Amino acid sequence: MPLGRKLRYGMVGGGPGAFIGAVHRRAAALDGEMELTAGAFSSDPDNSRRMGAALFLDPRRVYGSYAEMAEREAALPAGERIDFVSIVTPNHLHFSVAKAFIEAGFHVVCDKPMTTTLEDAEALCRLVKARDVVFALTHNYTGYPMVKQARAMVREGVLGTVRKVIVEYPQGWLARPIEREGQKQAAWRTDPKLAGAGALGDIGTHAENLARYVTGLEMEALCAEVTTFVEGRAVDDDVSMLIRYVGGARGILHASQICVGEENGLNLRVHGTEGSLRWFQEKPNVLYHRTADGPERILKRGNAYLAPIALHNTRLPPGHPEAFFEAFANVYRNAGRAIAARLAGAEPHPFDRDFPTAADGAVGVHFIRTALESGRRRAWVDARYTPPA
Amino acid sequence: MPLGRKLRYGMVGGGPGAFIGAVHRRAAALDGEMELTAGAFSSDPDNSRRMGAALFLDPRRVYGSYAEMAEREAALPAGERIDFVSIVTPNHLHFSVAKAFIEAGFHVVCDKPMTTTLEDAEALCRLVKARDVVFALTHNYTGYPMVKQARAMVREGVLGTVRKVIVEYPQGWLARPIEREGQKQAAWRTDPKLAGAGALGDIGTHAENLARYVTGLEMEALCAEVTTFVEGRAVDDDVSMLIRYVGGARGILHASQICVGEENGLNLRVHGTEGSLRWFQEKPNVLYHRTADGPERILKRGNAYLAPIALHNTRLPPGHPEAFFEAFANVYRNAGRAIAARLAGAEPHPFDRDFPTAADGAVGVHFIRTALESGRRRAWVDARYTPPA
Amino acid sequence: MPLGRKLRYGMVGGGPGAFIGAVHRRAAALDGEMELTAGAFSSDPDNSRRMGAALFLDPRRVYGSYAEMAEREAALPAGERIDFVSIVTPNHLHFSVAKAFIEAGFHVVCDKPMTTTLEDAEALCRLVKARDVVFALTHNYTGYPMVKQARAMVREGVLGTVRKVIVEYPQGWLARPIEREGQKQAAWRTDPKLAGAGALGDIGTHAENLARYVTGLEMEALCAEVTTFVEGRAVDDDVSMLIRYVGGARGILHASQICVGEENGLNLRVHGTEGSLRWFQEKPNVLYHRTADGPERILKRGNAYLAPIALHNTRLPPGHPEAFFEAFANVYRNAGRAIAARLAGAEPHPFDRDFPTAADGAVGVHFIRTALESGRRRAWVDARYTPPA
Amino acid sequence: MPLGRKLRYGMVGGGPGAFIGAVHRRAAALDGEMELTAGAFSSDPDNSRRMGAALFLDPRRVYGSYAEMAEREAALPAGERIDFVSIVTPNHLHFSVAKAFIEAGFHVVCDKPMTTTLEDAEALCRLVKARDVVFALTHNYTGYPMVKQARAMVREGVLGTVRKVIVEYPQGWLARPIEREGQKQAAWRTDPKLAGAGALGDIGTHAENLARYVTGLEMEALCAEVTTFVEGRAVDDDVSMLIRYVGGARGILHASQICVGEENGLNLRVHGTEGSLRWFQEKPNVLYHRTADGPERILKRGNAYLAPIALHNTRLPPGHPEAFFEAFANVYRNAGRAIAARLAGAEPHPFDRDFPTAADGAVGVHFIRTALESGRRRAWVDARYTPPA
Repeated sequence: MPLGRKLRYGMVGGGPGAFIGAVHRRAAALDGEMELTAGAFSSDPDNSRRMGAALFLDPRRVYGSYAEMAEREAALPAGERIDFVSIVTPNHLHFSVAKAFIEAGFHVVCDKPMTTTLEDAEALCRLVKARDVVFALTHNYTGYPMVKQARAMVREGVLGTVRKVIVEYPQGWLARPIEREGQKQAAWRTDPKLAGAGALGDIGTHAENLARYVTGLEMEALCAEVTTFVEGRAVDDDVSMLIRYVGGARGILHASQICVGEENGLNLRVHGTEGSLRWFQEKPNVLYHRTADGPERILKRGNAYLAPIALHNTRLPPGHPEAFFEAFANVYRNAGRAIAARLAGAEPHPFDRDFPTAADGAVGVHFIRTALESGRRRAWVDARYTPPA
Repeated sequence: MPLGRKLRYGMVGGGPGAFIGAVHRRAAALDGEMELTAGAFSSDPDNSRRMGAALFLDPRRVYGSYAEMAEREAALPAGERIDFVSIVTPNHLHFSVAKAFIEAGFHVVCDKPMTTTLEDAEALCRLVKARDVVFALTHNYTGYPMVKQARAMVREGVLGTVRKVIVEYPQGWLARPIEREGQKQAAWRTDPKLAGAGALGDIGTHAENLARYVTGLEMEALCAEVTTFVEGRAVDDDVSMLIRYVGGARGILHASQICVGEENGLNLRVHGTEGSLRWFQEKPNVLYHRTADGPERILKRGNAYLAPIALHNTRLPPGHPEAFFEAFANVYRNAGRAIAARLAGAEPHPFDRDFPTAADGAVGVHFIRTALESGRRRAWVDARYTPPA
Repeated sequence: MPLGRKLRYGMVGGGPGAFIGAVHRRAAALDGEMELTAGAFSSDPDNSRRMGAALFLDPRRVYGSYAEMAEREAALPAGERIDFVSIVTPNHLHFSVAKAFIEAGFHVVCDKPMTTTLEDAEALCRLVKARDVVFALTHNYTGYPMVKQARAMVREGVLGTVRKVIVEYPQGWLARPIEREGQKQAAWRTDPKLAGAGALGDIGTHAENLARYVTGLEMEALCAEVTTFVEGRAVDDDVSMLIRYVGGARGILHASQICVGEENGLNLRVHGTEGSLRWFQEKPNVLYHRTADGPERILKRGNAYLAPIALHNTRLPPGHPEAFFEAFANVYRNAGRAIAARLAGAEPHPFDRDFPTAADGAVGVHFIRTALESGRRRAWVDARYTPPA
Repeated sequence: MPLGRKLRYGMVGGGPGAFIGAVHRRAAALDGEMELTAGAFSSDPDNSRRMGAALFLDPRRVYGSYAEMAEREAALPAGERIDFVSIVTPNHLHFSVAKAFIEAGFHVVCDKPMTTTLEDAEALCRLVKARDVVFALTHNYTGYPMVKQARAMVREGVLGTVRKVIVEYPQGWLARPIEREGQKQAAWRTDPKLAGAGALGDIGTHAENLARYVTGLEMEALCAEVTTFVEGRAVDDDVSMLIRYVGGARGILHASQICVGEENGLNLRVHGTEGSLRWFQEKPNVLYHRTADGPERILKRGNAYLAPIALHNTRLPPGHPEAFFEAFANVYRNAGRAIAARLAGAEPHPFDRDFPTAADGAVGVHFIRTALESGRRRAWVDARYTPPA
């Protein structure tokens, strides 16, 4: 660590009862390279204060609003103020919070999807570039070591030319209208004002990000079926689509929140001319590799035969399983080291640039928009997109 | 067995080097209820003779052509002639062989897809009805006991209303142009004249049949991507499609022969309002059942807690695995018992009516045609169809 | 087939309600190389007759006792009489039935364990040798192609020197005293007079045979814990033992019929200096191979990369699963071809000698005796044994 | 947290290159309830200093020896000094370090096995009792939520009376003499002076602890085979044993470090009169439950149908996998909350007493001694033991 100290970060969102805030805090804590120093945990100042106390924060660093936090942290001396902000609010706030902190000079880690409109996403890309800050989007699933291994194998040509990509993200927790039964997570994630989209935004973007991260393929066209199965729900809860990738590969993407009994079944299959890969989020420590002529191979996390980037993103020897927090922590650690390098005026190690960016966020938001349009029109639509550089 | 003797059957096709003929013979032999008595195993009379000798047949019952066989078997006394014919030729011959034998008064077991045109399929349906013969199509995968269990559970409402159906049939054996390297199976299956269609016909119809058998759902519309990945190949080798079922359920069907490393990966997932089922052909003895509120359940073949029809179609106690031949044998056994009942002038037991029929064959051929049309037009197309009664 | 005709066989045992008789008949029927021609299916002549009729046998070939069958079949002309007998009675009859048929000049396929005393086993070995007949013991689990693959890999040195062998055969069906609830299978298998021993004989010998077939290791000493968990049961229902093999390898063998929920969980792990193998009877089409330095490999039945003997003992391409009947049929097919060669005065192909013999049966019976002695004495005992040549 | 602040802890051991020290630090950091404040990371003061700097510790709190640390931390004011010490040295030092800190008034978290002699283990038990400190032993595998679920199910009688216990801990990393090739972890773990025993102590004790934690059974007698396969190795690298438990249950325990390709394969099967459980450390989020009459059930971490103690020890919803660090963190969190309660003069919540204690450590050390004795004598030996209260 070129800085010689832990990074300091503040959090916006993640108050009492929130799910993802606690995940971010544990992910950030795991490696001992950063510490939570400030927070605006809730739009309700009392809740924010309560949360700060539960986290043993200095009460002076717990704020009643993100705007106040951005302003007052910026005013602190360099040796005290936070280095970056972690944004874990519902989606509709990501843009304005990120904008406030970037304009105040802070680096950003932000939950996904990045924004609720493409316009905001593109504005954010331009702002990140203009202010030259580090911006990391927590598409945490690409933080898994065996996902990085898959990407490395595709890049090295182990699979030959990719022909077919199948990515699925089935969940079942919204099979009933639990948003009308007081389930807080369900309530905001099915409110179009707070979430933007339903399954598409919440998990479809993870699927899109995973497939793109591993294969490097860009979409050319897609044909989507976007469905709301649960009566009265204001957003989609199931989406299936056919994809044509630039260069001729074909794809299927399926994301659903009504597949009863599915828990968090993100999975990816990539089929190339020379071989195939399979990876399942619920069994994240293994990657299945098949070829035409030999036995199937089970690559396992932590082994010396893996790609350097897969080994770099792991903390335990083989057979000592890692899981969700560790993958999430990889986004924090890599982004944190990039931030530390920036603060120290150094170049980050190439491995420390390995986290999702604002451009990835814009691609994801464009993907949501395209899929919704295709579903509405019941037709194939153009899906090509280049985010602002 | 009301007949008091083994059934006698003849085979058309299945000569030296053929794959599926030997499968049919083993399936027919397993239960000791029928015996191979005659054959026209090849269009080359020498090959036919050689095959007959290898099978220890009486040389007088080995014929040089199916037409000769139909005619001469029909002329034998009732106590000698075959009871039914088993048709295992390439697809383009199914229709004329079946027609010849039905018109000669024989019952029929026929490999799939039933015909290469919808016109032939419908003509065959009408002929079967007119001549009142038993006609069984070897969609063998629905012969598996745990597939029958799945169908029983859907029918009993265990899953509530079905919302989402995902059926896949990935194979990898045609990822390279092995039809140009002397592989006989590949050669005829990729020849549009002999096979009619590629992956769609060879395995896509199995997927269609499996999903329909289990869920009972009829297609309303579909949008297919039909691809030929291997350069120079004259038929499709990969197909993906979105499906709308009558009543609002949604589906994804994926069949491919270029998924390197996949062997025979037919699998089905059915998601209803109350529960979900998963079944994999390569692990056929188990069926996974999930509900919203309890642990996942692994139902295992042979156990007393299964549906009567699942137990009826099994031969071994739990843990003594059954597989491909036994499922195939269920089609033969059930159709054979229906034939025996017919010959004895009796009503078959309801369980003995449980095999795919000519109507199923027509639905499958219509499905091929619809998917090819959708792929050509790159659009959603109407998929509703009722076969001739 | 050098004979130019199907083999003819008779069956002793396997009457109405029997389990294993029907298994033998299906195994024998699968390849169309032999046909059931005669039988003494039950010690009750009426039952025997009824069974013969259900199997469509010529009533003149259905006998009221095995003695009658041996005598009268031997008196038939060579072109009519059976070529071999299949013995599927409870264990205590194996010896006298086998003796009668061997002395009448017939070859034998016999269920396991071979006899209920070591004296009988050794006498049978000597008789087989003296009369020069083919004698096959249906240790059917070593008929699985992937078990043959494992044996080939050990022989080729792929594993280096074997250090540790773990073989288990857990079942749960006797966890309650169902022998006192009218369950026929349970009744005779827990009757020391009919079965000889309990779990040890019924399934422990399969485990012993599997480990020895794959590794080629001979036992030097063992220390067994032999338990009867179910009160009032007259035989053991659980056995665990430590094993020292000649040459220094160590082993664990565990067979149980009280492991609730286990179905037929025979499995084997072999660990050598260079690699390890794992095989599970309930997933018989795969063999797991691990080395120190590379990914785990899943070898799958039917693929060209397998050993010739594994490919020879399979009937379907990869992904089209085979299972219990096919493995059982391999014992029949291989023994049948050895018998046919003998009848034709030819040498069997080396692959056709690949079935368990009387010597294997004697080793199994000695193993039972040694384990029971060790359990009684609660001590390590010498386990070395060489059966009569 | 009754304290209103994070706990402060110091670490002894865990210097550069150590494996388990970093694991402890991450486990302690995960929940944000404690912070590393001091350390004597190495017997080499320079290494200790370097490690302290890498961890961003105040250099005044980094010590050259554990003795110095115990003395000087004890002299700090209550608001500054550490609350407990974490001992992660090689085994031979555990006793003296623990003794020094306990006598200086500190609570202790200590790696396993607790000591290298039974005398030390018992002395430590007495000291813990005399000084009334919290002492937690990091048998981390019993920290997994689904292990706690298994224990709860056994306690609630879901399995009826336990009859058979099979616990295995296969690893393969010591299949070659890598301790002579400069592998630091291997070097100390195979040095009898530093480690005490080999596989028995390093992983056999984890297996013993897991089986006892889940079943509550005490050993009555055991018969062990203790082997050193790798030539020249000074400790055992493989152990198999038969166990009789008080009350009549039977057991098999197998721990090995020479099972090539095994990574960290700790697993447990418990068979009772009414049901069975299976759990595998490498797939820690699921627990398999089988009964005699129904389908196998897969219980999955995070679901509402689990026992309260299983839910209490988890941090993520279903399908978001947890793994090794989280289980380890449960030992820290629970022990930490017990320490915090003690410091606050409060009673810990019953869930906060759920961590392995000094008594568990003494049982483990006695187990090592008994197994070694049995192996030496090649005989069953008495295994009953009650640690000092």
